[in-house]
Amino acid sequence: SLDSVMDKKIKDILNRLEYSPFPVSKKLLCTSVKSQGRLASCPAGMSVTGCACGYGCGWDVQGGTTCHCQCSVMDWTTARCCYLA
Amino acid sequence: SLDSVMDKKIKDILNRLEYSPFPVSKKLLCTSVKSQGRLASCPAGMSVTGCACGYGCGWDVQGGTTCHCQCSVMDWTTARCCYLA
Amino acid sequence: SLDSVMDKKIKDILNRLEYSPFPVSKKLLCTSVKSQGRLASCPAGMSVTGCACGYGCGWDVQGGTTCHCQCSVMDWTTARCCYLA
Repeated sequence: SLDSVMDKKIKDILNRLEYSPFPVSKKLLCTSVKSQGRLASCPAGMSVTGCACGYGCGWDVQGGTTCHCQCSVMDWTTARCCYLA
Repeated sequence: SLDSVMDKKIKDILNRLEYSPFPVSKKLLCTSVKSQGRLASCPAGMSVTGCACGYGCGWDVQGGTTCHCQCSVMDWTTARCCYLA
Repeated sequence: SLDSVMDKKIKDILNRLEYSPFPVSKKLLCTSVKSQGRLASCPAGMSVTGCACGYGCGWDVQGGTTCHCQCSVMDWTTARCCYLA
């Protein structure tokens, strides 16, 4: 019937266009970016979810994607960066 | 052919209904909430992904959305808050 | 018309297949995993978005899912773990 032909057709197109796999397979992926000094930035397209500093120093996020460790002397800064894949 | 008409039709509807833009454009967005004292809370609908404390103090998350810095004297607490947009 | 029949048909199939609800309801959920010592791991399927250490100690993420606190003596380590639900 036209009905079943359309059913199959629509599912085929959805699968081929990857309309369905996208939302189902969407995952949260994270990585660390470590730098010397007091700044560490996430790559474009990723978001800072947390930071780590040497010496147990406090931190803030500058410009949305850069971890800034607040001690005047800082040996390393790490940004934890996540995105949806 | 009916085939190509249906192809176009289905894609048109998917785009118009925004079935396709949704999953593709879904992104992870994060912001910081800084408060005086030892507690900082994420707004409703956002999740705590990390916390920062003055004095390099340790932290935990209370009630799912509030960063709690564990030192008895604490000048500031920052919650890192993320959501899907 | 064939047009309106197809419109309705396609929407029905999309709803039945749950192509639409998925992306819209996708949320970021986070929880904490606390362990004694200097290591704390997120469960399978979750991602580390940040870590906390006793003594204001610095941290890194090992093997993608384990928080490692870097002080030689460490009473506790907490991993902040998130996933999409």
